[in-house]
Amino acid sequence: MEAIPYLAFGSAMLALGLATFFFSSVKKADPGDERMRYLMQEIQSGAKAFLKQEYTWVAGFVAVLAVLIAVFIQPPAAVSYIVGAALSALAGYIGMTVATMANARTTQAAKSGPAQALAVAFRGGAVMGFSVAGLALGGLMAIYVLFVLVFKVDSAFEVVTAFGLGASSIALFSRVGGGIFTKAADVGADLVGKVEAGIPEDDPRNPATIADNVGDNVGDVAGMGADLFESYAGSIIAPVALTAFSLSLVADQATDAVNISLLTFPMAIAFIGMIASIIGSFFVRGGSSLDNKSLSRALHMGTNVAMGLTVVGTVGAAYWMFSDSEVFENPIGLAVSVIGGLIVGWALGKTAEYYTSDHFSPVKKIAQETETGPATTILKGISAGMISVAASVVLLVVGVGIAYWGGQYAISDTLGDGDFGGIYGIAVAAIGMLATTGVVVSVDAYGPIADNAGGIAEMAELDPKVREVTDALDSLGNTTAAVAKGFAVGSAALTALALFKSFEFAIKEASDGEVILSLDVGDVAVFIGLFLGAMLPFLFAALTIDAVGRAASQMIVEVRRQFREIPGLREGKEGVRPDSAKCVAISTAASLKEMVVPGALAVLVPLIIGFINVNALGGFLAGALVSGFALAIFMANAGGAWDNAKKYIESGHLGGKGSDQHKAAVVGDTVGDPFKDTSGPAMNILIKVMTIVSLVFASAFVSGPFS
Amino acid sequence: MEAIPYLAFGSAMLALGLATFFFSSVKKADPGDERMRYLMQEIQSGAKAFLKQEYTWVAGFVAVLAVLIAVFIQPPAAVSYIVGAALSALAGYIGMTVATMANARTTQAAKSGPAQALAVAFRGGAVMGFSVAGLALGGLMAIYVLFVLVFKVDSAFEVVTAFGLGASSIALFSRVGGGIFTKAADVGADLVGKVEAGIPEDDPRNPATIADNVGDNVGDVAGMGADLFESYAGSIIAPVALTAFSLSLVADQATDAVNISLLTFPMAIAFIGMIASIIGSFFVRGGSSLDNKSLSRALHMGTNVAMGLTVVGTVGAAYWMFSDSEVFENPIGLAVSVIGGLIVGWALGKTAEYYTSDHFSPVKKIAQETETGPATTILKGISAGMISVAASVVLLVVGVGIAYWGGQYAISDTLGDGDFGGIYGIAVAAIGMLATTGVVVSVDAYGPIADNAGGIAEMAELDPKVREVTDALDSLGNTTAAVAKGFAVGSAALTALALFKSFEFAIKEASDGEVILSLDVGDVAVFIGLFLGAMLPFLFAALTIDAVGRAASQMIVEVRRQFREIPGLREGKEGVRPDSAKCVAISTAASLKEMVVPGALAVLVPLIIGFINVNALGGFLAGALVSGFALAIFMANAGGAWDNAKKYIESGHLGGKGSDQHKAAVVGDTVGDPFKDTSGPAMNILIKVMTIVSLVFASAFVSGPFS
Repeated sequence: MEAIPYLAFGSAMLALGLATFFFSSVKKADPGDERMRYLMQEIQSGAKAFLKQEYTWVAGFVAVLAVLIAVFIQPPAAVSYIVGAALSALAGYIGMTVATMANARTTQAAKSGPAQALAVAFRGGAVMGFSVAGLALGGLMAIYVLFVLVFKVDSAFEVVTAFGLGASSIALFSRVGGGIFTKAADVGADLVGKVEAGIPEDDPRNPATIADNVGDNVGDVAGMGADLFESYAGSIIAPVALTAFSLSLVADQATDAVNISLLTFPMAIAFIGMIASIIGSFFVRGGSSLDNKSLSRALHMGTNVAMGLTVVGTVGAAYWMFSDSEVFENPIGLAVSVIGGLIVGWALGKTAEYYTSDHFSPVKKIAQETETGPATTILKGISAGMISVAASVVLLVVGVGIAYWGGQYAISDTLGDGDFGGIYGIAVAAIGMLATTGVVVSVDAYGPIADNAGGIAEMAELDPKVREVTDALDSLGNTTAAVAKGFAVGSAALTALALFKSFEFAIKEASDGEVILSLDVGDVAVFIGLFLGAMLPFLFAALTIDAVGRAASQMIVEVRRQFREIPGLREGKEGVRPDSAKCVAISTAASLKEMVVPGALAVLVPLIIGFINVNALGGFLAGALVSGFALAIFMANAGGAWDNAKKYIESGHLGGKGSDQHKAAVVGDTVGDPFKDTSGPAMNILIKVMTIVSLVFASAFVSGPFS
Repeated sequence: MEAIPYLAFGSAMLALGLATFFFSSVKKADPGDERMRYLMQEIQSGAKAFLKQEYTWVAGFVAVLAVLIAVFIQPPAAVSYIVGAALSALAGYIGMTVATMANARTTQAAKSGPAQALAVAFRGGAVMGFSVAGLALGGLMAIYVLFVLVFKVDSAFEVVTAFGLGASSIALFSRVGGGIFTKAADVGADLVGKVEAGIPEDDPRNPATIADNVGDNVGDVAGMGADLFESYAGSIIAPVALTAFSLSLVADQATDAVNISLLTFPMAIAFIGMIASIIGSFFVRGGSSLDNKSLSRALHMGTNVAMGLTVVGTVGAAYWMFSDSEVFENPIGLAVSVIGGLIVGWALGKTAEYYTSDHFSPVKKIAQETETGPATTILKGISAGMISVAASVVLLVVGVGIAYWGGQYAISDTLGDGDFGGIYGIAVAAIGMLATTGVVVSVDAYGPIADNAGGIAEMAELDPKVREVTDALDSLGNTTAAVAKGFAVGSAALTALALFKSFEFAIKEASDGEVILSLDVGDVAVFIGLFLGAMLPFLFAALTIDAVGRAASQMIVEVRRQFREIPGLREGKEGVRPDSAKCVAISTAASLKEMVVPGALAVLVPLIIGFINVNALGGFLAGALVSGFALAIFMANAGGAWDNAKKYIESGHLGGKGSDQHKAAVVGDTVGDPFKDTSGPAMNILIKVMTIVSLVFASAFVSGPFS
């Protein structure tokens, strides 16, 4: 089992090799005519400019936090933190680069047919998917091998955890910054373009169209990539940290062999999932049909193969790794935890799909409410989103129960404090959800590429048949994105739960057992923390919604100005082009400015509370976790449902485009934009970043200068 | 100190006497001309018909739960439960009766001037205020004297707590049922009347206008009365139950004298507050000015006098009652807790006012967002509501901290389990907020009377000057309602917190110390409970929003039918009247049907979880408390802010009535209707009903047939 970290590292390198292969394959594809190449370059240079500025700003933040970590924790943890942050940023950058190359090439391929277009778009997504998974697993294993196995530094697991904090920092700012950028551009483009100027979506005359497309790349691609890098790394770190922090307290029971089984099992699952994803990715092949079902089958084949292989491999690994100590009573239990996690993640995705797809009744009912105007449309979307919270929480709780039962069944009560096995089961369930990240992200990242490809087809004024192909691919992308969000949010809750427990142990260990966290919710400090924690996601949502609003109004002013001041623009006079770069610059500046407060809040509030009272911090994290989970689901699903209710009407139901019903649906969609693409997805990371920052600083809270 | 329960009972009788006096004074006032009397009777008979049907249904529910309590707990608790329910229902009925008498009389008095109208409206409200306070305190003291002092039944405090459960049951169904009724009528009347038929608000041609006015009485009067009856009773029960449940575990330390001080102190505060309220109510006198400031001063004079007297009395009571045992180290500490509660309650009210009044920037900003349409209006309201959550939670946490500190400072650590004093401080802080319920409810209930008076003026086609007077009174009512809501929600959180702690002790006591609740949030059962608890308020909000939606669409269908089928109605032909009774009947049937599921959910879910696992129930209650508090504030303030943003525009800003801005504001207002008048206010009660049902059934959970 000593070989597992190296095997996992090897599989990560293999994934990066595959990413390189897909990259060159995308690069070779034909990027189309001059106009298409021009548009592609505009989008690419806008996205690069944004990422460059974003990363510059975030680098400053990372540097400050690295210094704090070096001073309060230990210098190796600061190194690990920086590596985690840098690799996450790199993954986002690679994903964005290839996505902005693949868009025009997908458009061009769509001229030949859906199978060709699907191939280019999926390969573009796969570069991102395997870069994310490969860099995360590779980086983490390198840190583990170096600091834990080779240098054997003290409190080595603080160092491992710091990698996760690095990833979280980038993810948080990328999601918030990217989310603000993309929605400011989207809302700005829609409100002036569609509503005031009366020109269609993605029209080349609209100055904000390029910015909108840039937004898809920095928000949906780079932001989502950093998010899943963080989730994936976090899910592997959580059981490792849990084992390290909790079993160091009972060193007599935990022999080296037991320890090594527990520490490397998550890495083994990651290894199996990575190999399975690589194999799965070769099963994605489109046919010539534009039919949603056959496209969907083609795309899901890859995920299904990968998941099937992971299940088989997990059962084998559990038996192989947990049979050499009597502490492990029933190895199959841990396979149950992992597979339970995988199934619940899938079910959460299906729930999200049910509540946001126009094939099912919730979205249809929202669409029907447009008959009585925007107010009832909004109310129905809000209630549907809230009911989806209930369904998702019940699923999550079932998942937690199964994973806990599996772990308890597998691991003897004599190890740790009685329910160590159960908590370990919960932690590995999160990996179950994320083991196939490589292929899941590939499928997810394909969506914005197809979306952009459609935008380019529209702006380059190509044959409407091309747009039909890209639209079919794009519409499927909305569904796959819902599934990926289900995995992300489910794993966030499980990972945070495991990290929370690790935090409890870390506090105990850091104080040599002197400080035992009282996390009793009957304790007043805990309850105060619980109230503050439950409140923070509301504040965070409010700040990000307002940020989008402010950034969008700057965009609106600029678009209006261009329509007013550039002669012939609105009329579409030959050769008259809008000043798109100005819009990109505005969205960039506004989103960078706006991401600072909510981002910093997430890191600073737990630190402040932790240095004042660790019990309150325990309550705070628990409150933020449960209320953040609920708000994340609510906002993501309500937003998605409004979006698809609008699309449902646009596809000819209830009066179709231009009707009063459509206008009401557009109101719902606009309200949903920051819900589903800014506040909602950032909430997942918020939960984890707060837990992980607390875990990294645990020793400082009990022994630091303020305690 | 033995006399205190009797004194408190006496003050309650005095309050009831005052209510009778105000009642006869209102009755004597002139109800106006034939048309006004006709309208008044229509409203009154509609409201009575609704309450009769509602109470019939709820009586069935109460009967079932009473049987369960008699079987699982003890028959005296069932008696107490029924008494609590019956008195709460009676208070609501009285309030509704007088409110529907006072409306036309206020209209008539408005012909003479604002001072006269204010006097009638306030006296109408005061009948309600003092009936609520008098019946609650009187009933509770009677139960206490009979079962605790005279019969000395076993586990007597279960019996006292059951009174609170009875009050909560009625409050929950009244708030939900009344809330659905009033908003179904309001939304139905607005959507068809204002938007489709283009006739103004409260127009006699609109068939739903009477139903809308009935709704004000069953929702804002009877519902609010039951709510505050429940809050007030609950705030007195919480410290009593806490003392009884926790100190019975340490009988050796808690001498009879100590016990009696702690048990009767809350009653003493209630006594002081009641006398102070009675005195304060005589200070409400209007002048001849219609100016908002001078009206506001007149109305607030009563509350301010009552609060000032309560503060002075509390300090005296603390010194007098807590000086005869060395357990009480610093009596002033408990006065700090009570006064701290009073101040924080006031500050929470002011925060609500800040976020919902058009004198401050949040509402003005929402109004400005109407310039870019309904979507941005909705988003701004949502973010403002969420930010108000942050402000309110911080205030609440400060209040909890002060109250806890005061209790710890006052009571020695040797009593109870170390932080008994602090928790007791939190419990009495809730009474601080509610001691002046008599006058606070009077001021609050005056609002809907003034609103109805305006409706009657409009429907009876009186001189516009009359409407001006009632409008001035009505607009002030919105502000006073915000303040009362602040008290209600703040006290709900504190009371629930104290009851939660009592629940912990009750479980321990019921099992003879064998079952010690592990409320550790690191425990998986607790965490599962926490997730489920945080989810429930979302589900409850969704169900109530949908209920309003369904009821409103039935109303819309009926109003459209009448405009279509009754010749001359829309044109306002002489002598043609709509069939208002039909609309009232529809709203009644729909709201009764719709209140069943959310109401039953609140009572059944904690019972189910409790019989399965008490630890999970602990987590569940904590999760529901923090997430329910946040959602309650969010929904109440967002809804209030949209309402006033619309009124701000109607008063001539940003284009005024009929402009596109106004249309956008109407969308916001309609979304906010179920937020602020159905889901939001019911959330406060939801939190408490779940805690109190758990407390009453605590002994059954550990010793019942399923354990």
